[in-house]
Amino acid sequence: MKILIINGPNLNMLGKRENNIYGNISFEDYFLSLKSRFADFELDYYQSNVEGELINQLQKADGIFEGIILNAGGYTHTSVAISDAVKAIETPVVEVHISNIFAREEFRHISLIAANAKGSIIGFGLKSYDLALQSFRKTVLVPGR
Amino acid sequence: MKILIINGPNLNMLGKRENNIYGNISFEDYFLSLKSRFADFELDYYQSNVEGELINQLQKADGIFEGIILNAGGYTHTSVAISDAVKAIETPVVEVHISNIFAREEFRHISLIAANAKGSIIGFGLKSYDLALQSFRKTVLVPGR
Amino acid sequence: MKILIINGPNLNMLGKRENNIYGNISFEDYFLSLKSRFADFELDYYQSNVEGELINQLQKADGIFEGIILNAGGYTHTSVAISDAVKAIETPVVEVHISNIFAREEFRHISLIAANAKGSIIGFGLKSYDLALQSFRKTVLVPGR
Amino acid sequence: MKILIINGPNLNMLGKRENNIYGNISFEDYFLSLKSRFADFELDYYQSNVEGELINQLQKADGIFEGIILNAGGYTHTSVAISDAVKAIETPVVEVHISNIFAREEFRHISLIAANAKGSIIGFGLKSYDLALQSFRKTVLVPGR
Amino acid sequence: MKILIINGPNLNMLGKRENNIYGNISFEDYFLSLKSRFADFELDYYQSNVEGELINQLQKADGIFEGIILNAGGYTHTSVAISDAVKAIETPVVEVHISNIFAREEFRHISLIAANAKGSIIGFGLKSYDLALQSFRKTVLVPGR
Amino acid sequence: MKILIINGPNLNMLGKRENNIYGNISFEDYFLSLKSRFADFELDYYQSNVEGELINQLQKADGIFEGIILNAGGYTHTSVAISDAVKAIETPVVEVHISNIFAREEFRHISLIAANAKGSIIGFGLKSYDLALQSFRKTVLVPGR
Amino acid sequence: MKILIINGPNLNMLGKRENNIYGNISFEDYFLSLKSRFADFELDYYQSNVEGELINQLQKADGIFEGIILNAGGYTHTSVAISDAVKAIETPVVEVHISNIFAREEFRHISLIAANAKGSIIGFGLKSYDLALQSFRKTVLVPGR
Amino acid sequence: MKILIINGPNLNMLGKRENNIYGNISFEDYFLSLKSRFADFELDYYQSNVEGELINQLQKADGIFEGIILNAGGYTHTSVAISDAVKAIETPVVEVHISNIFAREEFRHISLIAANAKGSIIGFGLKSYDLALQSFRKTVLVPGR
Amino acid sequence: MKILIINGPNLNMLGKRENNIYGNISFEDYFLSLKSRFADFELDYYQSNVEGELINQLQKADGIFEGIILNAGGYTHTSVAISDAVKAIETPVVEVHISNIFAREEFRHISLIAANAKGSIIGFGLKSYDLALQSFRKTVLVPGR
Amino acid sequence: MKILIINGPNLNMLGKRENNIYGNISFEDYFLSLKSRFADFELDYYQSNVEGELINQLQKADGIFEGIILNAGGYTHTSVAISDAVKAIETPVVEVHISNIFAREEFRHISLIAANAKGSIIGFGLKSYDLALQSFRKTVLVPGR
Amino acid sequence: MKILIINGPNLNMLGKRENNIYGNISFEDYFLSLKSRFADFELDYYQSNVEGELINQLQKADGIFEGIILNAGGYTHTSVAISDAVKAIETPVVEVHISNIFAREEFRHISLIAANAKGSIIGFGLKSYDLALQSFRKTVLVPGR
Amino acid sequence: MKILIINGPNLNMLGKRENNIYGNISFEDYFLSLKSRFADFELDYYQSNVEGELINQLQKADGIFEGIILNAGGYTHTSVAISDAVKAIETPVVEVHISNIFAREEFRHISLIAANAKGSIIGFGLKSYDLALQSFRKTVLVPGR
Repeated sequence: MKILIINGPNLNMLGKRENNIYGNISFEDYFLSLKSRFADFELDYYQSNVEGELINQLQKADGIFEGIILNAGGYTHTSVAISDAVKAIETPVVEVHISNIFAREEFRHISLIAANAKGSIIGFGLKSYDLALQSFRKTVLVPGR
Repeated sequence: MKILIINGPNLNMLGKRENNIYGNISFEDYFLSLKSRFADFELDYYQSNVEGELINQLQKADGIFEGIILNAGGYTHTSVAISDAVKAIETPVVEVHISNIFAREEFRHISLIAANAKGSIIGFGLKSYDLALQSFRKTVLVPGR
Repeated sequence: MKILIINGPNLNMLGKRENNIYGNISFEDYFLSLKSRFADFELDYYQSNVEGELINQLQKADGIFEGIILNAGGYTHTSVAISDAVKAIETPVVEVHISNIFAREEFRHISLIAANAKGSIIGFGLKSYDLALQSFRKTVLVPGR
Repeated sequence: MKILIINGPNLNMLGKRENNIYGNISFEDYFLSLKSRFADFELDYYQSNVEGELINQLQKADGIFEGIILNAGGYTHTSVAISDAVKAIETPVVEVHISNIFAREEFRHISLIAANAKGSIIGFGLKSYDLALQSFRKTVLVPGR
Repeated sequence: MKILIINGPNLNMLGKRENNIYGNISFEDYFLSLKSRFADFELDYYQSNVEGELINQLQKADGIFEGIILNAGGYTHTSVAISDAVKAIETPVVEVHISNIFAREEFRHISLIAANAKGSIIGFGLKSYDLALQSFRKTVLVPGR
Repeated sequence: MKILIINGPNLNMLGKRENNIYGNISFEDYFLSLKSRFADFELDYYQSNVEGELINQLQKADGIFEGIILNAGGYTHTSVAISDAVKAIETPVVEVHISNIFAREEFRHISLIAANAKGSIIGFGLKSYDLALQSFRKTVLVPGR
Repeated sequence: MKILIINGPNLNMLGKRENNIYGNISFEDYFLSLKSRFADFELDYYQSNVEGELINQLQKADGIFEGIILNAGGYTHTSVAISDAVKAIETPVVEVHISNIFAREEFRHISLIAANAKGSIIGFGLKSYDLALQSFRKTVLVPGR
Repeated sequence: MKILIINGPNLNMLGKRENNIYGNISFEDYFLSLKSRFADFELDYYQSNVEGELINQLQKADGIFEGIILNAGGYTHTSVAISDAVKAIETPVVEVHISNIFAREEFRHISLIAANAKGSIIGFGLKSYDLALQSFRKTVLVPGR
Repeated sequence: MKILIINGPNLNMLGKRENNIYGNISFEDYFLSLKSRFADFELDYYQSNVEGELINQLQKADGIFEGIILNAGGYTHTSVAISDAVKAIETPVVEVHISNIFAREEFRHISLIAANAKGSIIGFGLKSYDLALQSFRKTVLVPGR
Repeated sequence: MKILIINGPNLNMLGKRENNIYGNISFEDYFLSLKSRFADFELDYYQSNVEGELINQLQKADGIFEGIILNAGGYTHTSVAISDAVKAIETPVVEVHISNIFAREEFRHISLIAANAKGSIIGFGLKSYDLALQSFRKTVLVPGR
Repeated sequence: MKILIINGPNLNMLGKRENNIYGNISFEDYFLSLKSRFADFELDYYQSNVEGELINQLQKADGIFEGIILNAGGYTHTSVAISDAVKAIETPVVEVHISNIFAREEFRHISLIAANAKGSIIGFGLKSYDLALQSFRKTVLVPGR
Repeated sequence: MKILIINGPNLNMLGKRENNIYGNISFEDYFLSLKSRFADFELDYYQSNVEGELINQLQKADGIFEGIILNAGGYTHTSVAISDAVKAIETPVVEVHISNIFAREEFRHISLIAANAKGSIIGFGLKSYDLALQSFRKTVLVPGR
């Protein structure tokens, strides 16, 4: 199963900035661990600080990947355009956040993307990506959305 | 690891009502499947339509269970009192929702509970509970919250 | 035709409190009069101050009664959970209010329940219940909702 | 007992437009049925699309009719002037709506007229007018508003 | 000096309704008194309950009268169209209100017309019209607006 | 193809008032030019300052004209009743505005009518009507709405 | 008849600042003209930029003057304390404004004082004070507020 | 003098949770101290996490106790139903809060109950209950509310 | 123990105005009674209608008095500057109100000062000052804030 | 006449996604048809998902093209920066939308760009671009904006 | 060049209160340093806690000083009257703040004064005054505002 | 001392567009003047219209430059992502604006960036950059932020 992880603005700073909020390992290191632990998935990773490049990537991934894990960072709360892209493509998108956005500033409580995502996983640190990957696994007797 | 699942109002109607939103199996049946699939957990389940009984249960579980999975149903959007209880106890609480609350009526977009929960898992059908259980597992190299 | 009347918080004080707003006969006395005047209906009555008990009763009545008349009192303006219960059950629910809620405090102008009710009858004193009962009668040439 | 029914804008289209919302018989046909079924009332009917003409009619009816049933259509949500007229006259006015305005667009959830009406009957299809007529009947043991 | 007084909805009920708010003499009687007391003015009077007729009258009066005194009644708070008409014509319009609209319901605190009027006189009972007439008189040493 | 142009309040003042906003030719003159330039259309024109008369005209035109061009003037921002009429009739309605309403006062930024219109053409001066007429022409390869 | 005029902040700058809004004669000069033209009144004048001094003056004037004309300047829109003083005293207070506050910035559209004043006269330049004085005169046949 | 203290949700956790906000002695211990220090009062105590049970208790206490001290906890900010109960009963209710609710989250700044209470005492720690008790004592020369 | 009572605008009118709200004895008389009843306190009293003088007094009292009782009157709802002064000084400030501000106009429901005060005592008539004084007394076994 | 069409985010998906909203032909195909049908125009076309690239293109086109047709897609509702660019350049910009944005989600009802555009054409499917092109043609007797 | 520094409420507490926000030297000491470092300026300093005195000072300084540096403290967010004074005088006013008001409580994010000031300098500690002084210096090649 | 100036969207148009707001010299020319006048600084300059490129540049500058001067143009009011980048890096960022954003449209009154910047300098034309540079200089006796 091919899954693409897309990270938005400032997530390339992970492990370098604000460690109290985001932990102290880089996403690249975490991604290696993820690949070895989820050997049954074919994982790819993309990061950009540019809103439009995130849209480009969502469109390119459509039909090629079976699932997308999206952490749109600061664009989560302001981007109608990314949300439209998530809605436009066929590949299901799971929204993740490392920190608990509901426990931070009020403008972070609203996600413009969530309504068009398959589901949202919020606040489990980097483990949010683990859980998002799990969500793409089919399990006996548990009905899909 | 002892985990308690607490369901709020109308979730006892699961499988009986609005199947297009909530799927068509009862929570009791789903709970049996969950127990057999997560044999390494000791699982318990409680449901009530009464806001104050949910608070009673959260308080009783404190110190006895190592984790609580809470779907507060309609109280999610209105109950300061349940949110206070989640904040008051030591046992970490993971919030789950079966449907994508961000894709429904606007008053369902805000959770009063989320800010005090450890994290939120929203929109994966009953699989949301699976993922919530997974979130309590420790995994090598993935930093905790 | 079996109809259940459900009254919410403080409506057990009818005839004892604030007579200028709610009149001066108790609901029990009124209910006797109602039963004798609407002999072709089989009427039942339930009151509770507990939000969750009102939900329990709505769920129990489903499929057993052919109609429910609900005056949710103060919960009318705050309870997503009761509104969800009204939506979840098959039995049609008619919302009634004794006083004209639109002529009172602004927070009473919005009913969270109305959208899921079959219809609303507001402001006719206890006669609101009479009219609600009438609404369940089929009449020649008048199309249903 | 002399009762006047006043219908506002677009209600002359009843039975001709949007049948899924408003049913498929014209108000004229319904009015004939109403007259025959409520033979103890002397019923009159007026319709206009002009806000000011509705006010004219409310003023003219004052003191001549013993009750007015008013469906102000789209003016319900915008007309301070009609609401003032309802307040100014002595004859009691009952507000009716065919559809459940609380289950439609948000701007239809507020009635400027309701606060000055005797009561409101909402969402029972054309039967709302039947119930409004009933509300003018005096009934033993049921206290008036 | 030719001055036209235009009264809006329900002001034809003056002296007949809500005497505690609006006094107990009819506008016709008051208008006679006004004419005799302000003999140096040529006064005319128009009333309608129809918003569009008030606009018609404002347009007709343009260039013919040297001043207009407008009490738009309930349309004061809702009519962009009347406000546009006041702005479109050359003849200056003075807004009057009999009651103190700022001491009544909140929706009466905003006048859509005031911004396009020459000035506003509010709350002096029928004397508001006296003062509005005075405002059209030129006085030595007092600069115009 | 029969098209009706309906103009709302104060548009009869065109060419006479506020020339900096609305240009300096009357709508009657413009209408003659329009007729001669669009000889393949059968054009009709109606203007009223009365909200309800605009509704009357929309209802009368239904089924007789193949298209309606509506400039509701100041009622654009306040009239639920006209918007309901646009929705109720079968004939498609195109909304036009002479000035750029989005560059004027904030209350002009919202059109209650737009949601029920086929489309909106805003800000091209009187040419907005030309474009609205063009919109009713069928063109090869350009898919309808 | 003893009348006190109270002017608030920056009105001592009249004739010196922003002449396009406030005219070009000082209030002192205007006050002299007023005294000579209204010889039947005993007029007094007070100005302060200090909110609390305006309150002091309102309290001192109570029972000594028969009327107060108050232009609270910028405090009009922010001072609950002055409004409370106006309400607390027996002497009637008439609110005046030189400019049309409804045609200026939005925060000037609301007067906290108006609700407790006898009436308001707005937008007639310095003539607003003339009209306010007139409002204290009793006139035959014109009923008081 | 018989006084009942009613505590709402999570106040049974006092001394066990969030000691930095609520202090570290249990309410039971505090209540014993209160009884010994206020020996001239007959004191009773009730706690529940259930909104409706608090209403039941308020109703039962009516006419039996001479005063009620109510700390509704999280229901303070959301419960119209409890506020209605406070209004409905004859026994005066004094609202208390341990913490300074105005210095905490914004949703805690509004009390739905305060308007119907006799008075409010907020932010003095457990001493708030002491002061509430004092408020029921009659004192020479100090006028009642 | 030295305590200073500071009263804001219009509280010098106590006993002279609006007796239905504020009672009918002057604050001076009440203060005498207070002094004799609380002989163990050294009490001082200051009143001003000037916002800045209240700030001056708060600053002067800092370090000299052990407690301040502040009734900021109308400034309660508008003064960031007084609230900043309360926060800036070391001496604890208790906020009092004579009337129940939550039962009056909506703009009186918010106190800008409360968040920086030690606590608030609202609605007990002049007895509010009694209770505020009590709040400065240390009592065995009752933990401070 | 040289005209540039600029399309924003996700409009490269036209004909591939959400055909029920946007039709089923690609913009490239539509553009060919447009070129052949409007042979008197020299047409160019640019699309990007990147907000800043749209700004770059608007700046580059300034002075080179005589008109720009802009569909900013999702950025319409969020981009102050694009709106500033439209305002900064000399070449007139006409805003188009394929779908009726006023009949979709509420956040699509406001265009930040409209106020700085020459005019807006909304809701005619791809024909919106046809009409935008027409709007650049000069026509005898029809006054420009 | 003569410059006046005006400080508002509580800024006389500088160095004495809340040192973590405002630093620990008094403004008097800082002012001495400023004078010695900016020897080419003639500097004056005024502080008051009284809103109206700040207005008095602004008016007195007009025409006498060539520049004013204003830190209105808590009045920044509430005073229309001070803002009017800034607008009324000819001498340019530069607004300064010691702390970053945008990083503090939400009510401090809006300055009523900024719109009428020449410019604003916010958040540089006492150095904000240094920068404000610099802003009055003319520099070659740098165009004035 | 190494300082980087980063300019956002449309600031490359400086001197070419809207000269009444932004002056008539290009930023390149101004930058040359700045370099010669501030010879003790090592200055660099970057401009982009792309939001994400501004974030890239902020991240690259971190640790290399000792200060950043940021004018984010239109993104100032909408970009959570840029604000997050400012917060994430160590190098202090000073926000500047050429025009007085508080005297322009209301949406320009709020800066999302200001809360995370060291300070803001607004409205001094290009001289704002001069002042921002000065702010990085250390001065004897003036305490840093």
